[in-house]
Amino acid sequence: MWDEHTIRRMLQDVAKGERSVDEALSRLRAMPVENLGFARLDHHRSLRQGFTEVVYCASKTPDQVAQIVQRLAEAHGRVLGTRASPAHYEAAKKLLPELNYHELARAIWYEREPRKRRDGVVLMAAGTADLPVTEEAGLTLEIMGHAPHRLYDVGVSGIHRVLDELPVIQSANVIVAVAGMEGALPSVVGGLVSCPVIAVPTSVGYGTGLNGIAALLGMLNSCASGMGVVNIDNGFGAGCLAARINALAYAKEKD
Amino acid sequence: MWDEHTIRRMLQDVAKGERSVDEALSRLRAMPVENLGFARLDHHRSLRQGFTEVVYCASKTPDQVAQIVQRLAEAHGRVLGTRASPAHYEAAKKLLPELNYHELARAIWYEREPRKRRDGVVLMAAGTADLPVTEEAGLTLEIMGHAPHRLYDVGVSGIHRVLDELPVIQSANVIVAVAGMEGALPSVVGGLVSCPVIAVPTSVGYGTGLNGIAALLGMLNSCASGMGVVNIDNGFGAGCLAARINALAYAKEKD
Amino acid sequence: MWDEHTIRRMLQDVAKGERSVDEALSRLRAMPVENLGFARLDHHRSLRQGFTEVVYCASKTPDQVAQIVQRLAEAHGRVLGTRASPAHYEAAKKLLPELNYHELARAIWYEREPRKRRDGVVLMAAGTADLPVTEEAGLTLEIMGHAPHRLYDVGVSGIHRVLDELPVIQSANVIVAVAGMEGALPSVVGGLVSCPVIAVPTSVGYGTGLNGIAALLGMLNSCASGMGVVNIDNGFGAGCLAARINALAYAKEKD
Amino acid sequence: MWDEHTIRRMLQDVAKGERSVDEALSRLRAMPVENLGFARLDHHRSLRQGFTEVVYCASKTPDQVAQIVQRLAEAHGRVLGTRASPAHYEAAKKLLPELNYHELARAIWYEREPRKRRDGVVLMAAGTADLPVTEEAGLTLEIMGHAPHRLYDVGVSGIHRVLDELPVIQSANVIVAVAGMEGALPSVVGGLVSCPVIAVPTSVGYGTGLNGIAALLGMLNSCASGMGVVNIDNGFGAGCLAARINALAYAKEKD
Amino acid sequence: MWDEHTIRRMLQDVAKGERSVDEALSRLRAMPVENLGFARLDHHRSLRQGFTEVVYCASKTPDQVAQIVQRLAEAHGRVLGTRASPAHYEAAKKLLPELNYHELARAIWYEREPRKRRDGVVLMAAGTADLPVTEEAGLTLEIMGHAPHRLYDVGVSGIHRVLDELPVIQSANVIVAVAGMEGALPSVVGGLVSCPVIAVPTSVGYGTGLNGIAALLGMLNSCASGMGVVNIDNGFGAGCLAARINALAYAKEKD
Amino acid sequence: MWDEHTIRRMLQDVAKGERSVDEALSRLRAMPVENLGFARLDHHRSLRQGFTEVVYCASKTPDQVAQIVQRLAEAHGRVLGTRASPAHYEAAKKLLPELNYHELARAIWYEREPRKRRDGVVLMAAGTADLPVTEEAGLTLEIMGHAPHRLYDVGVSGIHRVLDELPVIQSANVIVAVAGMEGALPSVVGGLVSCPVIAVPTSVGYGTGLNGIAALLGMLNSCASGMGVVNIDNGFGAGCLAARINALAYAKEKD
Amino acid sequence: MWDEHTIRRMLQDVAKGERSVDEALSRLRAMPVENLGFARLDHHRSLRQGFTEVVYCASKTPDQVAQIVQRLAEAHGRVLGTRASPAHYEAAKKLLPELNYHELARAIWYEREPRKRRDGVVLMAAGTADLPVTEEAGLTLEIMGHAPHRLYDVGVSGIHRVLDELPVIQSANVIVAVAGMEGALPSVVGGLVSCPVIAVPTSVGYGTGLNGIAALLGMLNSCASGMGVVNIDNGFGAGCLAARINALAYAKEKD
Amino acid sequence: MWDEHTIRRMLQDVAKGERSVDEALSRLRAMPVENLGFARLDHHRSLRQGFTEVVYCASKTPDQVAQIVQRLAEAHGRVLGTRASPAHYEAAKKLLPELNYHELARAIWYEREPRKRRDGVVLMAAGTADLPVTEEAGLTLEIMGHAPHRLYDVGVSGIHRVLDELPVIQSANVIVAVAGMEGALPSVVGGLVSCPVIAVPTSVGYGTGLNGIAALLGMLNSCASGMGVVNIDNGFGAGCLAARINALAYAKEKD
Repeated sequence: MWDEHTIRRMLQDVAKGERSVDEALSRLRAMPVENLGFARLDHHRSLRQGFTEVVYCASKTPDQVAQIVQRLAEAHGRVLGTRASPAHYEAAKKLLPELNYHELARAIWYEREPRKRRDGVVLMAAGTADLPVTEEAGLTLEIMGHAPHRLYDVGVSGIHRVLDELPVIQSANVIVAVAGMEGALPSVVGGLVSCPVIAVPTSVGYGTGLNGIAALLGMLNSCASGMGVVNIDNGFGAGCLAARINALAYAKEKD
Repeated sequence: MWDEHTIRRMLQDVAKGERSVDEALSRLRAMPVENLGFARLDHHRSLRQGFTEVVYCASKTPDQVAQIVQRLAEAHGRVLGTRASPAHYEAAKKLLPELNYHELARAIWYEREPRKRRDGVVLMAAGTADLPVTEEAGLTLEIMGHAPHRLYDVGVSGIHRVLDELPVIQSANVIVAVAGMEGALPSVVGGLVSCPVIAVPTSVGYGTGLNGIAALLGMLNSCASGMGVVNIDNGFGAGCLAARINALAYAKEKD
Repeated sequence: MWDEHTIRRMLQDVAKGERSVDEALSRLRAMPVENLGFARLDHHRSLRQGFTEVVYCASKTPDQVAQIVQRLAEAHGRVLGTRASPAHYEAAKKLLPELNYHELARAIWYEREPRKRRDGVVLMAAGTADLPVTEEAGLTLEIMGHAPHRLYDVGVSGIHRVLDELPVIQSANVIVAVAGMEGALPSVVGGLVSCPVIAVPTSVGYGTGLNGIAALLGMLNSCASGMGVVNIDNGFGAGCLAARINALAYAKEKD
Repeated sequence: MWDEHTIRRMLQDVAKGERSVDEALSRLRAMPVENLGFARLDHHRSLRQGFTEVVYCASKTPDQVAQIVQRLAEAHGRVLGTRASPAHYEAAKKLLPELNYHELARAIWYEREPRKRRDGVVLMAAGTADLPVTEEAGLTLEIMGHAPHRLYDVGVSGIHRVLDELPVIQSANVIVAVAGMEGALPSVVGGLVSCPVIAVPTSVGYGTGLNGIAALLGMLNSCASGMGVVNIDNGFGAGCLAARINALAYAKEKD
Repeated sequence: MWDEHTIRRMLQDVAKGERSVDEALSRLRAMPVENLGFARLDHHRSLRQGFTEVVYCASKTPDQVAQIVQRLAEAHGRVLGTRASPAHYEAAKKLLPELNYHELARAIWYEREPRKRRDGVVLMAAGTADLPVTEEAGLTLEIMGHAPHRLYDVGVSGIHRVLDELPVIQSANVIVAVAGMEGALPSVVGGLVSCPVIAVPTSVGYGTGLNGIAALLGMLNSCASGMGVVNIDNGFGAGCLAARINALAYAKEKD
Repeated sequence: MWDEHTIRRMLQDVAKGERSVDEALSRLRAMPVENLGFARLDHHRSLRQGFTEVVYCASKTPDQVAQIVQRLAEAHGRVLGTRASPAHYEAAKKLLPELNYHELARAIWYEREPRKRRDGVVLMAAGTADLPVTEEAGLTLEIMGHAPHRLYDVGVSGIHRVLDELPVIQSANVIVAVAGMEGALPSVVGGLVSCPVIAVPTSVGYGTGLNGIAALLGMLNSCASGMGVVNIDNGFGAGCLAARINALAYAKEKD
Repeated sequence: MWDEHTIRRMLQDVAKGERSVDEALSRLRAMPVENLGFARLDHHRSLRQGFTEVVYCASKTPDQVAQIVQRLAEAHGRVLGTRASPAHYEAAKKLLPELNYHELARAIWYEREPRKRRDGVVLMAAGTADLPVTEEAGLTLEIMGHAPHRLYDVGVSGIHRVLDELPVIQSANVIVAVAGMEGALPSVVGGLVSCPVIAVPTSVGYGTGLNGIAALLGMLNSCASGMGVVNIDNGFGAGCLAARINALAYAKEKD
Repeated sequence: MWDEHTIRRMLQDVAKGERSVDEALSRLRAMPVENLGFARLDHHRSLRQGFTEVVYCASKTPDQVAQIVQRLAEAHGRVLGTRASPAHYEAAKKLLPELNYHELARAIWYEREPRKRRDGVVLMAAGTADLPVTEEAGLTLEIMGHAPHRLYDVGVSGIHRVLDELPVIQSANVIVAVAGMEGALPSVVGGLVSCPVIAVPTSVGYGTGLNGIAALLGMLNSCASGMGVVNIDNGFGAGCLAARINALAYAKEKD
């Protein structure tokens, strides 16, 4: 393995005259970029490691998932598998008996030691049918160390349900608003707050709902400002983005 | 021309023996359906005559529009020309000097004697850019004998603006809600009222607004019930439908 | 519960000096908007209550549906469940033995005491395959207190079938026209009447029918005026809108 | 040129020993397929020559059009240029002074000696705005030796206008039905006749008309049988197909 | 029932003075259009009766299909059921034991006495996977009295296979060309013949084939003239149109 | 104006017996929701006031823009007008001589006293043609008090240009990545950082770029996590969202 | 069978006087074009013969596949069946016991004697889920005589994984880059090499991935030059194109 | 600047003890990846330099284009500007008087000394309207050192025109086939050759041609193998890919 230690040793050999300049140059040239750029890339990796603990199960066999989950659990003490079927869970549970299955979110997860969870994320769902996607976002946030405040069944066709929750909504660092059909919830919420809003279209609906395209277009064209949209049904992506944003509020002040 | 009078005379000839049964039968068989079905079709026409006074100018030359407008004005004392350019207006005004031009609604209109106008229609526009379509609906309603209550600039990203108008909104017989971009206004309004709502998507917006498709899809997928949608930018169609609905509230009670 | 009575009592306490101004102000400030705006919102709710008796079953489990249906039936004496599978029906029937299942309309329904039903709605279906959506509209109308006149198998490729029914069609307060494939029925009907027409596209067809998109576009672009369109296969929405419109004809005259 | 005569001569040379087998084989191998298959391809060309007299002007410069038109007029005594601008006409008229311009159809045409024109084609247009496309079809038919019976302004929202023309419609060999917006005319007509119907969608309309896509989809999904559809605004293609079909009725009986 | 006989009798009563003119007029006015226009509509019906013998089975239950098939077989001695499943066949066979099932074409059919079949239609399929649609067209043609010449597996990527059949192709009255994927067969064939070509896109393909949309667009944009296109997978419609066209060649010469 | 003070005074009047309970109740009931909910809504407004200083000029006349700009400048000392034409600028400059025009960003802006600007936002553009949208985002950020670090011409087809900037990229609080054509830049960047990434598709490209749809889809389907997408060409929305996110890093730590 | 040998013999007969010129001419005229054009078409066939050994199994029954596979294996000693199910394999294996099944690539294959395989093709897959399509390309290349260098799991969200393989990537004659979701891999690779790149979109993804359309659009709009795109999931087509390109590098130099 | 020389010197300093190991390590860590990976990236750049001489003019001002063109001409002695307007040409010509303008291809170009051009590319265009895109490809090929053989006006609706050119077509190393409308040319050509085919859809056509989408889909779904597709109207991309492929045939044999 090429790493900082290896390069240091090689330079020391050069300094001691035990390795010629040409030989050192040749080895440097042959190193994979990843290793040459070790400092930044490694640093980058450790920054990103929260995400290497996640498996997208949908396109993998139960056996593949089981092995990946076991390896990640060992290495990181924490793992999340999205779009997991009961079969994925059954297979993985044999290798990792403490594994949990969140049926509604269609996700498997494991945490050796729970982290302290941070407040600041509000997670809203327009209707009951949006809950699987919403809970995928919720579980993602929890695994990443956040404690989302859940507000469910707050669709815009009963606007008073949204307004009743104004104090909660307006105190958030970041809001995740999940909606199918016409997808208007983020627009209404976006007009009520000054924090970032993450809009998640779901495939809930029928006919011209076009499996979530209608909701997606509604969100992209929102007349409310300060909103970012993720792929249809992408609860994980929304949770991930909310986690990155909420983390900023807990970093040291820079000004 | 075949009409009731003609048929009556023919039957009288048969009764007097001046025309044979076979000859009468043969003439009946040869009559165009329109004439045979005179009672209903004529009645139908007089019922529909409000609409024969309307010209869609966009695909016609100024000269064509001028002649049609003059003829309709003479016959009905009232005319509406939608999607009219200043050139249409200039040409038609020469033949009908009392003709008016409504710049915002891009419409020409004339009314020999204003009708009494009926209350009951509320006309809402989400943004300033939706006004041309909204005013086309408004003028259509007025020409058809209704006095719409206008509520403008009540987009959902400032939801309190909608809520401020609850008393007006909730007292309507029918609401026309015009919106572009994500088109969420009708959804929010539809959740606040028990009367029919006519949703009008506009082509206001850019990018994924897709010239009004996003707003249209939002409206068709609204989770609020009791809503009918018209074509993108079709202010005339919405005004027409609202007029038909509001008229029902003024017909004699039938129960 | 916060309601007018509660607020009146609080004000009386203030008047009697039994509650300080600050305390009253503080309680007012803390009230959910819904309660502050009680008069309008409550009134609104009772107006809307016809709709709170409806359950969209498609995205719910049989157990969830059973519990909601039972609760609504108790509270309102009346319930409608759309897109209900036999499994939904079986589960709900255990809790509410008088529940009915309308197979064609894929709907469950219950009415403790049937309302008087009002005439005025004509319900047309272009083809046999459009009947599930049409009957969903029909049942919705019936539960909401209307008695739709049904005209089935009146597609435009046999135009005489439509014309034969002219007297019925032309005496309607509102027409619901359901059609798949090219969706031309509402256009033809819209040209024959002066009442509002609700156009319902269905997903009947194949290939370029695009699961109802072709019919939808046909209806939105109709050259007949006075038409509102609902989502593909949305029989419930059409029935609901027709009920709201027909109700206007039975309200007291206002002019 | 390679033709039957040439091959016969070559074979005779082989028979006489004046050309070796290898040389003959080599020449056969080198012949273009077109020449080898002379009889059929040439015959085919003469059958097709009616179409070589047509120029699609839209993507050509006035000069290019002028030269092609002059050459075709000389060779065939007859030429049709579709999608021609006034500039195309001006340039071509200089080389061919007898050239005509059909403004409505946006076409240039010339016929040294008019052919006898055959009856049997009925050409219907739903609205005034469909006339440019309809007249392109009409002129195409005339240049190809047919005398279409024109029925204009017979849209389905005034169904009696179609029914009034039943005798004409039902006596056609082939019908060309041109319509924009919802494109329902061919469906209605197709249900009234037993002859082939050519449906021509036009780009007339706005919003969800999608520049003719709505009309096209309506026609492709027609519940009437026996209909063929052409590209949006393709009056020439429709005229051409109608001419081919009507010609069959004038060919000798084959049974 | 209102028919010619009834009207004649009424007129005779008027002639005999047994019925007043007013009473006769009143009854005429009340007659359904269908009956008033009896001569034309009935004549029209008998012209169209070939099509009333066809059932689209896809959206009907086996029982419904069985009853319709039996009734049509009795009335017309001939019936065709398209998109029929084995279950449809089993149910219908019980009521009509002589019923046949064409597996490849997914169709049921019955003919008491075969008609004489006419030559003139050439039926081409680009690939093996296009055969179900092609055979639906073939069977439709046969039931309607035509004997299509079948040319299968003649896709354009092996152009010599098309060219080998030039004599057959060029002697047709009308060609039905069926193709999926890029749908180029009709373009190539259309350039080789002077008769009408019916292009049938199929849903064969994957990915950007978009279930036949790619083939459909290819056919609508063909640079070959004289082509009409039907809906994706609509073998019945193509057969029907080809039958109508080929019949013209067997009608009496009119010139 | 209804506000806390007004309500307090009314309650004091009740306490003093100078106003009856019924009168107080009646006034409370008549208050607009906005006023009843004063604390939250007003607070909300002041939070949102940064956004009330922005005008979308595209659909407004120069005169309308000029008046709005002047009023906002007076009230807030700061204004931003997006999608502004030179004509908008000319008209507004007459009323507000200190107004600036940013040609590339197509924006007008004014700031009485510049705010201190915060670091933390990195603004990347894939190509030169993406600069108008990118600069709209940049100017938005600046007006809102942030100092974006600009990295331009860093498209993924020259990946080393992105990698050269790793230190800058990896130290950001939030990144705005603007790209047209295939829109791959945010995917690549998203894989290199652990902060939130805002992806902005532009309409740069041609053919299948579909005016930015290709870039949008690429971004929504990115395999990199933690990304939010805005509408095509919506530089303002992206700047706004980035400002909201970056502000979190400067708020007081909450943990 | 007609081939060069047959024609040579016929010409020799003519030369020997054993066959008359007329008879020879008549036989030549009757030959199918394919045979007349033998030299080129046959030559062409032998050039193309690699492709006649391939069966697209998806739309064929196991029996049909079995027979075609056996016949091709006998004639060519080599066969590839794509989109083959286990049922296809089972059926074909009975007739050809040496047949192999490549589960991941969903392909059956057989090679009597393996060819020498050529280097030069690099086969890259962005993610694990892209492997079925990638392996279809790989197997196609192998059957056609190439030895692709496989680089898997090199998606752009971990750009260092691509960069690590620069020496391999930059030494290729042609690269096949397979990716789903946003499909950015070919863009990044295309910017790093000077050889042709074949981009293969896969249907991997969900929501706005639109079954591969997003990846396809990304690839077609790549800002990297020198890239050709194939249909979604078309591993066979990509392998085939790569084989044709790589073969050029092994042909004799022509300059 | 960081390059091999710099790194060597630094290593020599380490060897000589003039620089500490820590300092060397620190400098290595800080180097931009581009410089660390110098050998490969630089080499890569020189390989790619043919493409750095190309400017996409469409989104640049005449001045910008003029300056880039002058700089590239000086550095490389060769430049190509695509999508160039006459205004671009006029501006650039002032700085580089020898600059040429290719009107049909809408391109500016300059070559100090023409390269030897290689045979092997055949460039086909279906129709006259496809020539601008085709010539963009042709000029690109010429600037890159190839001499394409042009075959124009060889659309598939006159298939003999394609077949006449079989010898030329079948001797190509690579074929570029350009077509609009239904885009069938590459399919037909692909079935006749064993070399790679590059398919270029153009936006030629109207209506359902959808600005080239129909042609694109036709090409992506071609049943001919060995074809790669580029973006609509992307003549430059096709020329570039053809050049990369043809170059392989001129590289040293590797087997």
